[in-house]
Amino acid sequence: MTVPSLPPDSLLTALRWRYAVKSFDPTRKIEPATWQALEEALVLTPSSYGLQPWKFVVVEDPATREKLLPLSYNQRQVVDASHFVVFCIRKSLSADDVERHVARTAQVRGIAIETLAKFRAVMTRDIVHGSRSLHANAWAANQLFIALGNFMTAAALLGVDTCPMEGFEPAKYDDLLGLAPRGFAASVCCAAGYRAANDKCAAIPKVRFEAKDVIERR
Amino acid sequence: MTVPSLPPDSLLTALRWRYAVKSFDPTRKIEPATWQALEEALVLTPSSYGLQPWKFVVVEDPATREKLLPLSYNQRQVVDASHFVVFCIRKSLSADDVERHVARTAQVRGIAIETLAKFRAVMTRDIVHGSRSLHANAWAANQLFIALGNFMTAAALLGVDTCPMEGFEPAKYDDLLGLAPRGFAASVCCAAGYRAANDKCAAIPKVRFEAKDVIERR
Repeated sequence: MTVPSLPPDSLLTALRWRYAVKSFDPTRKIEPATWQALEEALVLTPSSYGLQPWKFVVVEDPATREKLLPLSYNQRQVVDASHFVVFCIRKSLSADDVERHVARTAQVRGIAIETLAKFRAVMTRDIVHGSRSLHANAWAANQLFIALGNFMTAAALLGVDTCPMEGFEPAKYDDLLGLAPRGFAASVCCAAGYRAANDKCAAIPKVRFEAKDVIERR
Repeated sequence: MTVPSLPPDSLLTALRWRYAVKSFDPTRKIEPATWQALEEALVLTPSSYGLQPWKFVVVEDPATREKLLPLSYNQRQVVDASHFVVFCIRKSLSADDVERHVARTAQVRGIAIETLAKFRAVMTRDIVHGSRSLHANAWAANQLFIALGNFMTAAALLGVDTCPMEGFEPAKYDDLLGLAPRGFAASVCCAAGYRAANDKCAAIPKVRFEAKDVIERR
């Protein structure tokens, strides 16, 4: 397999180009091939044990987007962006969730499910019954934010703007999208599309601490 | 500014190429220019409010890496990978942490700190005193995992292998690296470098649920 070889400068150019867009151009839609790649990027996100404790809800229906708007402090990104993704954790991971992953592993790798007994036991002991089970939702949220980081970086490289959003009413999202009865909970959102020509945030310098303040060499 | 335009196929090729490397080639080091870009990618990671509640500890000293090994269930990635990063949250965010960010914002944007009073108040009310302060560490960890997702994707695009690691003893890491007295806590690690020619994980098919099982269109 060919080793990827993006020039480091191209990576940094993309990461510097991106920012949390406040005003999206409502007339510009992400091309289907580009969007499909971003969905595939979400699917490919790594997670602990490979458990993928998540669901990515892509809200396409304009009427539903309008209903989410007041549940999101009327932030227009919800309705103006080309695409809007609700990142959801799978709550209270159960033995069934582990089993689903074990079954999928056996299927993809073409091996007998019996050979995965130890893998199943380790995950179950840790996440379902062990110390991590006490904060399984926080653990799942951590994994979900890997997906968010992967998604925003992937989008930037493709020239797609994003705006991550924690400012919304999660319980009301769960109700509206019917998430709770299915064991999911909205944790964070991300709008994706293209910045409006007049987005006032575009020209504001990005604020980051100096490298020496966040990176420590030991 | 030029809009990034990586072809979607190049993104997916990189994300499919990556996997959690078990055996790193201890003889292969990441070139300084490449590593510098990956550090810069960490610095550029987006976070809620831009608060950057983190520290990235790059453990370069071989003796320290050897000491971390038994605290990491003897996973050889800790010592064999070219680079090893400990991702740390800033614990119990305080008014001082908010102030640091406000001051940096004023500095980068060349504006008077007084103009940021509302920004300061919103953050303080939410993270320091408000509902989020009750789980400020979980919130900080979420942000940290954005950095992890960004880092792994960035590395893959540059042809650098990674292995994210939750299997270590965080409290003992905190002790060894002197993190606790400085208000930081190790949350997750990531080894980076190059897969060994004989890494047995390289040939195993990647396991992901089908897109229809994790992506829902509404």
